[in-house]
Amino acid sequence: MVAERVRCRGLQDRICSADAAASLIKDGMTLGMSGFTRAGEAKAVPMALAERARTEPLKITLMTGASLGNDLDKTLAEAHVLARRMPFQAAPYLRNAINKGEVMFIDHHLSETVEHLRTRQLGPVDIAVIEAVAITEQGGIVPTTSVGNSASFAILADKVIVEINLSQPQALEGLHDIYIPTRRPAREPIPVVAPESRIGLPYIPIDPDKIAAIVLTEKHDSSSTVLPPDADTRAIAGHLAEFMGHEVRHGRLPETLQPFQVGIGTIANAVMTGFIDTPFHNLTMYSEVLQDSTFDLFDAGKLDFASGSSITLSAARYQEVLPKLPDYKSRLVLRPQEISNHPEVIRRLGIICVNTALEFDIYGNVNSTHVGGTKMMNGIGGSGDFARNGFMSIFVTKSIAKGGNISSVVPMVSHVDHTEHDVDILVTEQGLADLRGLAPRERAETILARCVHPSYRDAMADYMARATARGGHTPHVIEEALSWHARLRETGHMLDGAAA
Amino acid sequence: MVAERVRCRGLQDRICSADAAASLIKDGMTLGMSGFTRAGEAKAVPMALAERARTEPLKITLMTGASLGNDLDKTLAEAHVLARRMPFQAAPYLRNAINKGEVMFIDHHLSETVEHLRTRQLGPVDIAVIEAVAITEQGGIVPTTSVGNSASFAILADKVIVEINLSQPQALEGLHDIYIPTRRPAREPIPVVAPESRIGLPYIPIDPDKIAAIVLTEKHDSSSTVLPPDADTRAIAGHLAEFMGHEVRHGRLPETLQPFQVGIGTIANAVMTGFIDTPFHNLTMYSEVLQDSTFDLFDAGKLDFASGSSITLSAARYQEVLPKLPDYKSRLVLRPQEISNHPEVIRRLGIICVNTALEFDIYGNVNSTHVGGTKMMNGIGGSGDFARNGFMSIFVTKSIAKGGNISSVVPMVSHVDHTEHDVDILVTEQGLADLRGLAPRERAETILARCVHPSYRDAMADYMARATARGGHTPHVIEEALSWHARLRETGHMLDGAAA
Ligand SMILES: CC(C)(COP(=O)(O)OP(=O)(O)OC[C@H]1O[C@@H](n2cnc3c(N)ncnc32)[C@H](O)[C@@H]1OP(=O)(O)O)[C@@H](O)C(=O)NCCC(=O)NCCS
Ligand SMILES: CC(C)(COP(=O)(O)OP(=O)(O)OC[C@H]1O[C@@H](n2cnc3c(N)ncnc32)[C@H](O)[C@@H]1OP(=O)(O)O)[C@@H](O)C(=O)NCCC(=O)NCCS
Repeated sequence: MVAERVRCRGLQDRICSADAAASLIKDGMTLGMSGFTRAGEAKAVPMALAERARTEPLKITLMTGASLGNDLDKTLAEAHVLARRMPFQAAPYLRNAINKGEVMFIDHHLSETVEHLRTRQLGPVDIAVIEAVAITEQGGIVPTTSVGNSASFAILADKVIVEINLSQPQALEGLHDIYIPTRRPAREPIPVVAPESRIGLPYIPIDPDKIAAIVLTEKHDSSSTVLPPDADTRAIAGHLAEFMGHEVRHGRLPETLQPFQVGIGTIANAVMTGFIDTPFHNLTMYSEVLQDSTFDLFDAGKLDFASGSSITLSAARYQEVLPKLPDYKSRLVLRPQEISNHPEVIRRLGIICVNTALEFDIYGNVNSTHVGGTKMMNGIGGSGDFARNGFMSIFVTKSIAKGGNISSVVPMVSHVDHTEHDVDILVTEQGLADLRGLAPRERAETILARCVHPSYRDAMADYMARATARGGHTPHVIEEALSWHARLRETGHMLDGAAA
Repeated sequence: MVAERVRCRGLQDRICSADAAASLIKDGMTLGMSGFTRAGEAKAVPMALAERARTEPLKITLMTGASLGNDLDKTLAEAHVLARRMPFQAAPYLRNAINKGEVMFIDHHLSETVEHLRTRQLGPVDIAVIEAVAITEQGGIVPTTSVGNSASFAILADKVIVEINLSQPQALEGLHDIYIPTRRPAREPIPVVAPESRIGLPYIPIDPDKIAAIVLTEKHDSSSTVLPPDADTRAIAGHLAEFMGHEVRHGRLPETLQPFQVGIGTIANAVMTGFIDTPFHNLTMYSEVLQDSTFDLFDAGKLDFASGSSITLSAARYQEVLPKLPDYKSRLVLRPQEISNHPEVIRRLGIICVNTALEFDIYGNVNSTHVGGTKMMNGIGGSGDFARNGFMSIFVTKSIAKGGNISSVVPMVSHVDHTEHDVDILVTEQGLADLRGLAPRERAETILARCVHPSYRDAMADYMARATARGGHTPHVIEEALSWHARLRETGHMLDGAAA
């Protein structure tokens, strides 16, 4: 069993306990760890680290692909192991520590972290900890359910710890496509010309001598936290499908549409599932995270191919999909997040990008990360790579949050992750605003008419009228622009006299 | 003379007056016109249009590469010809009309406009009006001092009007490299692998039958409005050169650095000129606008090659450079702005991007466009294409404006063009803040210490202390975040009790 998994001669000697492996990690080091949206993270070594931190001072910089499962970010933050964390997280406990200023969080575009490491603008990575299904005869590391930044971490680190997860099916071998851009100034074009392009190796090529320890584990990935569709997310999906139909009828898109990127979270997943009940066919995805919706679309015969950087599924779907992986494999590829999110490939393929906003404003600026302008939710993730460089940038959100105390459409967003230039289409359950080719004043009219919740429409119209009377390309009553947020903070409701 | 310029047989017949050519343009049409940062714009037909608008109703949508010279945007706006204008402008009169809401201005990333046209998400373009030095034997159009969006306008328009400018030297022929990305889903990598890559044709290839009229002109390009370096811009250049030296010493950059993009305006030009007095050598540029500094660096033997989309020079430099064009030609290429600003190429080449901010905030968000959050200055131009996708994104500005009434470093920017994720280095005459790898609270400390003008430091430190006491990943006192702007509007000064 283990021999099938650790096939490189001589490496079996390096199998050891998680504690022994973790002892290589010293206070002050930078760790590059596998893991992308709860998929494929190293599981045993970080737990051993947290344990060790009970008895000795241990603070590290932790870099991953994206968020971790198995409550690792919580456990590490509780144990005060995290001095610095990048480039993404989605754990309530860690989020809290970040917002208290206890953990320095660096929120990166997901395509950029390894570029910064490679050029030594960040780092160096002392040790990489990578979950794998196997180590090949030549010492190549075969990742599990995510690639994320694992390949570059392993290549750039001084030492590598591999966690062989025996519960991850060996059928994962052959799923990955590991390609690392050549170094400048001799960098060549990245040869991905379609979602199904395979351009690299099915394993991470490193010098096996760098593998300092191998740990055997069996823990499963955590399941995704995505909730089932509700009336609002179904309405959002419906508006978007209708709009796509309109584009097809006007000859601007074929019936197969263009490759989709779909962001994390409940709403984006629901939107994608919504495509089952549409006339579109032979769809493709060039995305980051492949969620339940990807497999729903495969099973419905709607989707031809999906490229991603991780597979993150609900508990039920995980049970079904993993054993059937051999059937899906010819239609799937997992890539480094640098390639899944690469500006070059995103622009070339003409991706339709669907991401979720926390809030957007009447001019189409989007806040995806900061509650009330200050508190980090998760991070920008890959949304900026896609929204800036894609063919069409769509943001979705429900028009209100917290039982209506919050309008997700505001006069001015309290934090900007995506500027008006990067936002083509906005959708709430109320309707869809097509902002392409519109000037800011026209955008505001469209957003007011289509996206704002009825309970906030009058207040918004009033703000717009007073702002427009003052003038400007993008009219604002500047001393009132953030007053909805200030009022929410003071009274618990965004509108005057409306607090429950 | 004219036979050398209009070499395609049969086309000489189509030479006519500007009025006759302009009569093809009807009320309500969309015009795609040459012109990029005061270089190479069509000059006679738009004047004829403005004249015609005195006596008949005439409102059009005008698309260009970027800003126009010869007061064309002013003349057209005064004549009320412009219903809609995109994707960039820099004319005080037009800016005013935009801010009054009289002209609908659509502020685009400069790489994107023709993608939107090609996929019919914008447009269509009824007529293209292109300034040229010549029409080749096969009907190819040879642009003058800019390429901008001219190639795609001519290819996509129903009809083309060519303005042959006899005062533009024929030596311009051979300078241009016209490459149009293939259509999706069969799009291939763009084969630019170095600033000097030539991948296309030296003319715009179109069916000569589409050329509906040819107008002869002689007017010069307007000269640039760039001011000479002053003590502040010299200090900014000095900080940046010192920083580059630091990067070289740490082995993160070679002594030839990496290709530079340098934005428009006085400050960016001064920064580039500053490289004359540095040890760096064999520099290259992969930029949009080639300003005086490009030729200063050529003449100083510092620059090996410059790729751009236009040449925009001061009056003195224009007189010197244009006659010497044959000497510079092997070291120069002008490309469509879609290619000069292409995310794919920018990331591949690893561009060092230097752009100018109007203001930035303590967390590193940049406003390049909106004075006081509402009034459009010029537009985002190409800064977003470069800042998001480049190797290193640098923004420069003086720390104060309007004699100190305005701090260009503020608690929260009143409009965001470039998010914290897209800003690596900030420079004012006070100093340089290296934000790479820093969390927001650390960014704020660095910016306060390095960039803020002494007269604003106490107020900023006070804001930061109160914001941090409230907490959050990006601390703010939300009801005060824009108070400096509001106070400026009310009192003429950003600080309490400091109004003159
Ligand atoms: C924005 C994002 C948090 C939305 O997630 P989601 O699960 O689809 O959305 P939900 O509607 O369930 O909202 C999540 C929470 O935000 C709250 N929320 C929504 N809008 C809000 C607003 N305007 N202000 C404050 N809170 C808001 C919801 O109430 C909910 O709170 P809860 O967790 O206490 O119930 C998520 O998509 C994200 O992190 N995006 C940024 C990264 C990204 O886009 N990546 C894409 C490429 S991977
Ligand atoms: C930002 C930009 C306007 C600066 O231009 P510049 O000529 O280098 O800078 P200056 O310092 O001369 O400033 C221009 C004006 O803005 C004013 N200004 C500067 N900072 C200001 C601030 N924070 N608030 C209000 N006004 C400000 C200056 O006082 C000056 O006013 P004036 O014209 O009345 O004298 C210009 O670079 C731009 O339009 N950039 C956006 C597009 C871009 O970056 N393109 C790059 C790729 S092409």
